[in-house]
Amino acid sequence: MTVTEAERDAMSRALALAANGPRGLNPQVGAVILSPSGEILSEGWHHGAGTPHAEVDALSKLAPGAAQGATAIVTLEPCNHTGRTGPCAQALIDAGVGRVVYALDDPGEKSGGGAERMRAAGVDVQSGEQQDAARALIGDWLAVQRLGRPHVTVKWAQSLDGRAAASDGTSQWITGPAARADVHARRAASDAIVVGTGTVLADDPSLTARDGDALYPSQPVPVVIGSRETPADAAVRRHPHAPLFYDGDLAGVLEDLRERGVQRVFVEGGPTLASAFLAQGFADEILAYLAPVLLGGDRLALTDIGVGTIADARRLTIDEWLPLGTDLLAIAHPTQEESD
Amino acid sequence: MTVTEAERDAMSRALALAANGPRGLNPQVGAVILSPSGEILSEGWHHGAGTPHAEVDALSKLAPGAAQGATAIVTLEPCNHTGRTGPCAQALIDAGVGRVVYALDDPGEKSGGGAERMRAAGVDVQSGEQQDAARALIGDWLAVQRLGRPHVTVKWAQSLDGRAAASDGTSQWITGPAARADVHARRAASDAIVVGTGTVLADDPSLTARDGDALYPSQPVPVVIGSRETPADAAVRRHPHAPLFYDGDLAGVLEDLRERGVQRVFVEGGPTLASAFLAQGFADEILAYLAPVLLGGDRLALTDIGVGTIADARRLTIDEWLPLGTDLLAIAHPTQEESD
Ligand SMILES: NC(=O)c1ccc[n+]([C@@H]2O[C@H](COP(=O)([O-])OP(=O)(O)OC[C@H]3O[C@@H](n4cnc5c(N)ncnc54)[C@H](OP(=O)(O)O)[C@@H]3O)[C@@H](O)[C@H]2O)c1
Ligand SMILES: NC(=O)c1ccc[n+]([C@@H]2O[C@H](COP(=O)([O-])OP(=O)(O)OC[C@H]3O[C@@H](n4cnc5c(N)ncnc54)[C@H](OP(=O)(O)O)[C@@H]3O)[C@@H](O)[C@H]2O)c1
Repeated sequence: MTVTEAERDAMSRALALAANGPRGLNPQVGAVILSPSGEILSEGWHHGAGTPHAEVDALSKLAPGAAQGATAIVTLEPCNHTGRTGPCAQALIDAGVGRVVYALDDPGEKSGGGAERMRAAGVDVQSGEQQDAARALIGDWLAVQRLGRPHVTVKWAQSLDGRAAASDGTSQWITGPAARADVHARRAASDAIVVGTGTVLADDPSLTARDGDALYPSQPVPVVIGSRETPADAAVRRHPHAPLFYDGDLAGVLEDLRERGVQRVFVEGGPTLASAFLAQGFADEILAYLAPVLLGGDRLALTDIGVGTIADARRLTIDEWLPLGTDLLAIAHPTQEESD
Repeated sequence: MTVTEAERDAMSRALALAANGPRGLNPQVGAVILSPSGEILSEGWHHGAGTPHAEVDALSKLAPGAAQGATAIVTLEPCNHTGRTGPCAQALIDAGVGRVVYALDDPGEKSGGGAERMRAAGVDVQSGEQQDAARALIGDWLAVQRLGRPHVTVKWAQSLDGRAAASDGTSQWITGPAARADVHARRAASDAIVVGTGTVLADDPSLTARDGDALYPSQPVPVVIGSRETPADAAVRRHPHAPLFYDGDLAGVLEDLRERGVQRVFVEGGPTLASAFLAQGFADEILAYLAPVLLGGDRLALTDIGVGTIADARRLTIDEWLPLGTDLLAIAHPTQEESD
């Protein structure tokens, strides 16, 4: 059995409602309750951790009994676990909903199984409607569920021969304007931007995402890792978001960032910190901006990443070699067999 | 005035004759003498240093006076300088040749000016006919004249982060089969293949150019540079050509190779020697084979190339980013303003 046109429209509406919710610890979810004849009875969305789930939000707007025989359209499989709000699957059953159409399966171990529970209660359940659009909306959240931590991009700029700077430490404009603009756009698509204390002390970066001279509307939280003190007058302290400071335990940093609702982390270096993320297997995406220049010398873009012999080399799968002006961006991820 | 069809055909013939001559210190040149009615009277080509030039070779096959009023078709401007054979321009004048058609101007300071001399003597001179084909034939020789030394390609294979090997020195198969096949094809198109003693002692390379298991018909001369002794049983000593051994004076090496008729030199490393060629400005072409792998550590594909500060970076112009299997070959040359 397929979905009706009214249900399809309602799913598009539910996806738009979902996007009203905050990006964070919980997924963005939207819901629409349709009468048996296809009229919208109510709408809801998830307003963030600690608030009702989207289905419950939508049901709560109806008089008792008004959802009897109705159809619920939800962007994510109604949950099956008793959290702060009780299982949504049960709430839909209790409300007398006769049919549920949802987009994506709930990947959670505890929260999944809602569809099964509802079917067992006699509800007609249909999944997969507009799942690509739903995945586009909450793909980062899904990645966090899969990885058990935020998704990490490790980025660096290097000369063709793998240097981050000349021998005296100078490195201004290794890469060109197109590459730098690309970095800023990718920063803006992240939730947190991470650097080591070495970079803060050497470069005093602002860690904002800029479109030319203007700030992008969305700014990642700046994160500084290391035991050394960030100066009181450091540029990062004037960032629109208060910076977060951590010591060098990267697993702990990622766990804390996850709990703060960070889904995508953008590691900007420097070389020591980027290498530590790589060495510990915390790099899901690698962005290496290659400038057509040779430097030689000892200022390496990556230092030690824990590879002792060639069999342990970190093999990458290149998703794209992207030309940016005269530079070239390698967009890659660890090749599965080697990295897992 | 343009050339006749008979003259055009004769130039094609002269180019084919030129290719009979040896590649070496002198250019490959061919010549055809046509009667006033366009019949081929004689043909010649340059058989190598110390032998008559192509025009003189062709004239020598004619009875005295037979070239009176004839047309000479030559692939390179008849020379104007008194070497072992006397100026060819004068020989053509003396033979009574009425018209000369040639492809390329002679770039030599001493040898150039032949066209002028002949015009002054009343000969009808036409240049530029099939010059692209002529340049394809003797482009490498022209490069030697321009550079004052053989053309040098510096090649290396590296991980994306610029390493030539893992920390323990293992490096087998950093790059894949397509990249290795590309290297062998480019070796075969060179006159000499150069390595440092470090590479000979570490890898014992055969320095042959192989197409699969077979040897390419044309094999570059193997050259080893460094003060350390190459072992008596080194593979390079079983090369089809006897290897040449030099100490570390690169300018002297290139001068000697030039005198031996080497036009194209392929420097295969290792890192120390490749860096020395780069540092001294002896790299006309750069081939960096990038493998999609990260290694970290201290086995750098380039060591020190004499860049102290970013303003002195060796800027490259990338001619092509060439995908080879999962590897990427950067084909580049030094950007002019920086390197000259
Ligand atoms: N090419 C590029 O893309 C790029 C990007 C950024 C920076 N840079 C350059 O890199 C240079 C700075 O290099 P850097 O390597 O010193 O900078 P860094 O990686 O930013 O900082 C290194 C510091 O990070 C801290 N740290 C935190 N967690 C760590 C861990 N798990 N393992 C190791 N260290 C950890 C340590 O600080 P504590 O000692 O304080 O504990 C360490 O000394 C600057 O010159 C900058 O311009 C280049
Ligand atoms: N990734 C690649 O593309 C690639 C290619 C080749 C080799 N390798 C690896 O590189 C390693 C060997 O490295 P390497 O750097 O020792 O090898 P190398 O560059 O082949 O040899 C270095 C030696 O070259 C001699 N040399 C001659 N002229 C010189 C000059 N002008 N300046 C400096 N040195 C000069 C010196 O030898 P003397 O001390 O005898 O005078 C020097 O020690 C091996 O492990 C090999 O597998 C990698």
